[in-house]
Amino acid sequence: MSELQSTANISVQLPDGSLREVPAGTTPLDIANAISPRLAAAVVVARIRPLAKVTAGEASDSSEESMYAGPTTDADGTRLVDLTTPLTESVELWLLKEQDEASLKVVRHSAAHVMATAILELFPETKLGHGPATDQGFFYDVYRASPFTDADLAAIEARMAEVVARNEPFVRAEEPREKGLEDYEKQGEFMKVHFIERFTKPGEEISLYKNGNFTDFCRGPHVPSTGRVKAFKVMSVAGAYWLGDEKNQQLQRIYGTAFFNDKDLQAHFKRLEEIKARDHRIIGKQMDLYSIQEVAGSGLIFWHPKGGIIRKAMEDWMREECIKRGYNLVYTPHIMRREMWKISGHEENYGENMYPAMELDDAEYRLKPMNCPGHILIYKNSPKSYRDLPVRYAELGNVYRYERSGTMHGLLRVRGFTQDDAHIFCTPSQIEDEIAACIDFAESVLHTFGFQEFKVELSTWDPKDKAFIGSAEKWDGAVGSLTKVLDAKGIPYKTIPGEAAFYGPKIDIKLVDVLGRMWQLSTVQFDWNLPQRFDLTYKGEDGELHQPVMVHRALFGSVERFFGVLIEHYAGAFPLWLAPVQIGLVPISEKHLDYANEVKKQLEEAGLRVELDERNEKMNAKIREFTLQKVPFVLILGDKESNTQSVSVRTRGKGDEGSVSLADFITRAKTLNETNAATL
Amino acid sequence: MSELQSTANISVQLPDGSLREVPAGTTPLDIANAISPRLAAAVVVARIRPLAKVTAGEASDSSEESMYAGPTTDADGTRLVDLTTPLTESVELWLLKEQDEASLKVVRHSAAHVMATAILELFPETKLGHGPATDQGFFYDVYRASPFTDADLAAIEARMAEVVARNEPFVRAEEPREKGLEDYEKQGEFMKVHFIERFTKPGEEISLYKNGNFTDFCRGPHVPSTGRVKAFKVMSVAGAYWLGDEKNQQLQRIYGTAFFNDKDLQAHFKRLEEIKARDHRIIGKQMDLYSIQEVAGSGLIFWHPKGGIIRKAMEDWMREECIKRGYNLVYTPHIMRREMWKISGHEENYGENMYPAMELDDAEYRLKPMNCPGHILIYKNSPKSYRDLPVRYAELGNVYRYERSGTMHGLLRVRGFTQDDAHIFCTPSQIEDEIAACIDFAESVLHTFGFQEFKVELSTWDPKDKAFIGSAEKWDGAVGSLTKVLDAKGIPYKTIPGEAAFYGPKIDIKLVDVLGRMWQLSTVQFDWNLPQRFDLTYKGEDGELHQPVMVHRALFGSVERFFGVLIEHYAGAFPLWLAPVQIGLVPISEKHLDYANEVKKQLEEAGLRVELDERNEKMNAKIREFTLQKVPFVLILGDKESNTQSVSVRTRGKGDEGSVSLADFITRAKTLNETNAATL
Repeated sequence: MSELQSTANISVQLPDGSLREVPAGTTPLDIANAISPRLAAAVVVARIRPLAKVTAGEASDSSEESMYAGPTTDADGTRLVDLTTPLTESVELWLLKEQDEASLKVVRHSAAHVMATAILELFPETKLGHGPATDQGFFYDVYRASPFTDADLAAIEARMAEVVARNEPFVRAEEPREKGLEDYEKQGEFMKVHFIERFTKPGEEISLYKNGNFTDFCRGPHVPSTGRVKAFKVMSVAGAYWLGDEKNQQLQRIYGTAFFNDKDLQAHFKRLEEIKARDHRIIGKQMDLYSIQEVAGSGLIFWHPKGGIIRKAMEDWMREECIKRGYNLVYTPHIMRREMWKISGHEENYGENMYPAMELDDAEYRLKPMNCPGHILIYKNSPKSYRDLPVRYAELGNVYRYERSGTMHGLLRVRGFTQDDAHIFCTPSQIEDEIAACIDFAESVLHTFGFQEFKVELSTWDPKDKAFIGSAEKWDGAVGSLTKVLDAKGIPYKTIPGEAAFYGPKIDIKLVDVLGRMWQLSTVQFDWNLPQRFDLTYKGEDGELHQPVMVHRALFGSVERFFGVLIEHYAGAFPLWLAPVQIGLVPISEKHLDYANEVKKQLEEAGLRVELDERNEKMNAKIREFTLQKVPFVLILGDKESNTQSVSVRTRGKGDEGSVSLADFITRAKTLNETNAATL
Repeated sequence: MSELQSTANISVQLPDGSLREVPAGTTPLDIANAISPRLAAAVVVARIRPLAKVTAGEASDSSEESMYAGPTTDADGTRLVDLTTPLTESVELWLLKEQDEASLKVVRHSAAHVMATAILELFPETKLGHGPATDQGFFYDVYRASPFTDADLAAIEARMAEVVARNEPFVRAEEPREKGLEDYEKQGEFMKVHFIERFTKPGEEISLYKNGNFTDFCRGPHVPSTGRVKAFKVMSVAGAYWLGDEKNQQLQRIYGTAFFNDKDLQAHFKRLEEIKARDHRIIGKQMDLYSIQEVAGSGLIFWHPKGGIIRKAMEDWMREECIKRGYNLVYTPHIMRREMWKISGHEENYGENMYPAMELDDAEYRLKPMNCPGHILIYKNSPKSYRDLPVRYAELGNVYRYERSGTMHGLLRVRGFTQDDAHIFCTPSQIEDEIAACIDFAESVLHTFGFQEFKVELSTWDPKDKAFIGSAEKWDGAVGSLTKVLDAKGIPYKTIPGEAAFYGPKIDIKLVDVLGRMWQLSTVQFDWNLPQRFDLTYKGEDGELHQPVMVHRALFGSVERFFGVLIEHYAGAFPLWLAPVQIGLVPISEKHLDYANEVKKQLEEAGLRVELDERNEKMNAKIREFTLQKVPFVLILGDKESNTQSVSVRTRGKGDEGSVSLADFITRAKTLNETNAATL
């Protein structure tokens, strides 16, 4: 390597394997231009990896810190650089075009600089904080005594268009840290001073990016020039305290978003509208599914009749499925002695998420944040033999976890929820089959409830973090088992170090909803800690006592959260088996009420949920109301229908389907209902 | 009346309406003798009511106080007197023989005196407390430094027989209170001194009963002589602190029982054995149905797999039945803000049964002892019209109530339980129909779960007790509604003043189990208080806002308690639909395992719970085990069965029923299961 570096030429290996010898100092843009000017116009940023350094480096984190601490290296040893960065050693080179995920973040980061340029041109008194790219766009935190109005935001957006039209190159420069500090102090840029002090060390060079008259302390990389920021929008402004401390200055966080082109930008806005239209809090209210009652407390869910019907359908399905899959249903109390939570280790390791103790005349009691100890006590209540294993206890257990007030979000982040929780106690030789069965079960849950796609994450420990209990040998063994199962099933997964539960590694299954959003719901967790803490045993074939292995698993995760995701996934248009009202009956006039009641009776006898609109209203008004409530089928009942024992069917999303015999319709609806069909 | 009293003759009216003129001072025994000496030998005690005083008097209570405060008058104006009491005014007279319930209590009270006589003869250092009759017999609290041994109890019983053989008359006497106090003080009878001071006033005469050399401060009445205590047994001794205060002397409570004859006494012992054999705590352990884990706390139930199956069957039935009957299922949180419990009045009126508050960052929270406020908040969440009413919300709600440690009893008295709770909000004109429907539903619950008989109590308020909320007008109106419903249904009931909930009157339904024991389970309660406190409204037909009436009702009452009663009622031999294992399969040898597995599969497909005993054990050992577990059907599977697709059936309680085709057996078991048949 050092040999190569000392020569005037370096080698650049392209993704197709071809090698180019170029003078040291050549930029990725030079190479793109050499390939084709069209490519040079299309590339956004470059990714490089030193040749012969193909083993994985240390992964960098994606926290604020990494924005400033100079170029960082990804887990695969690659790093992003400006197209204008001179290459000084032999590298593998990827020229990233718009299609690359990383490119979009670079564009957005550059857009943040463009916005800062515009802000300072219009409002030179403004002081800058930081301005990163995000999953949805970018923001810049700024300080200015008077608040930015909607008109200000429009002006900023218009000025950004000018900065883009000027097509100013982004130029990277380095200068001594002390110079940077001095300049920023002179300008009163207290936040920049803070960031330099925090993220760089005395004597270091700091990195600056300049476009036109604007210079920012920044790690980069950026697009070659402001002209590459082609489609953007200033979205909104929100308050935030400097360093999150309410004793500090109140900053203004100006949000924007950027895309490669207008088409993508418009698609983004459309998606935002779709997300808003699917907001479970709004639909939950419109459809009268649930409420949160501030007088009763934060993050506590009241399931209304129509939500209750859905919950019952979810829970009934889950319970029956558990029984079919060899689980036993148990029920355990919601409070237990504090002493027990000490034995279980929850007080020590999970105490800050638990509610305060209640002192009774015999002991202190605490609400359960997890169901595991309850199941363990049942296991422990009678001696077990290897013949009894695996033992699988399932419970729809209500747990309470302390979330800060103000952090709750509808059904998705709550203080009390219902886990479809199960614990499996088995011999070490059974563990892989059990985990495989859990994953099968999880897939069945997701498919039954209408999700086609999911992503799997394997969370492992961080050996340096003392919050994790257990030896390296145990962690490695457990992670090995989980890996083996995933590999055997051919399920792709991402490994995430440091994200395991404190008691063992876990597999998280994130479902992907109709808008492509990911939701963390199902989890399968390995645990050797609790069996040890509670001294669990079984008598082996050898007549000796052994310690069982324990698996925690929840598939809905939280019934409340899963319900929230279902509402958003279906935008309230639930499949028939989950719909609170499955069939709406619309008699055309009063004289068809008798027939409507007969239809209602027959449908109800078939186990269907029916609502008959008996009001003296126009037919179309009644249909509209059922449609608004997203009722799967609306049956119109008039003379013709009543004379021929038929029903005129309007199907949600399809409209008028004409008349069919009542008997045929009942068969159709009953089948959809009893097979839990995910679509109408 | 005063005229009559001043003449030498009084009138005595017998139950047949006949009147006898007798000299004042005639005793009931004289009259019995005049009718027939055989009657005189059979009567135990007399009941009298002054003639012309046939309106109801003030009801007396049955507490300790009434034992000493002189003859008391029952609610119907009658009172019990000794057969030897001289009658001084004209009365209605009932001569009570052994068949009368009141007679047994008199015999038992007299037996307590016989026991005290025997104790003092054998252990003259003993000091006496009090010795009342109870539902199961009688006891006497005594103080003596050394404990009574089993041999002492046997000696006391033997000496009692001597006292009975001596046939000493019980003679009533009165003497000045001061004389009684002086005598007892001299004898060191500190407890008797206490009772005289507590229950009589200076200047009063006190009443004494003497038999042989034993005299006791006592209100009576008694049987004519010790010879009438014909069948008795000294049962046991237990410790109790004087006046319930552990700083006082420790008394010994000696328990005995007495009956009219040996046959009744033997029947009583047999019943005690039956009760013991049915003890849900013992059966619960034998059948592995549930546990209480002291490490987790007192009065908290862990439902094991086999109990969980029963609970699921109970709850599934209840939920479906609620839906059929027009209830909506809702779910509400287990904790709510303390402020809400103030609004509801629970903190003020029910606070001592609630768990201490938990302080979070936004408010204090308390565990719910009742579900009502949760349902009210759902009602209140959207405006209601008269067309929406009645609204019926049902929930299997987990409530926590603070019971003192040490007072818990298995499943019957616990700290946490699940109410099958519902709240009905309706217009005043709907209230009677709703209450009638609740009572129908309650009857359906009891019959479905195998109880044939029940008793109804109507609990009303005590206008003098300030714990009751609401005006006399409201109470009278509500009691009127409840009465009207019970009368219309022809249901006999007992009115119990002062036993209502603080917010309104209630109907309690006590079921009678197979041993004739009564269990308080279902309750239907009227409430105008909470609708007012929460300002509930509905828009009437007149377009104005009105206040709905509210009914609280629970039918199992507590799922835990109902389960306990079920276990004892069935002695664990549950009807098929509730049995944890419905069918046990016994392959005669290993070569019948394939067929056994096929049978298992078919039974499971029919929705039945099956256990296959695959162990290499003798057939009879396997049958015995299933029999011990009270499995309804055991199927023996050998060559013959496997060749003919049949099963050899052993039915619980009936034994071998021979072979039937597998298909026929499946139909039989499936029908029993799906119809919730209460018997096999």
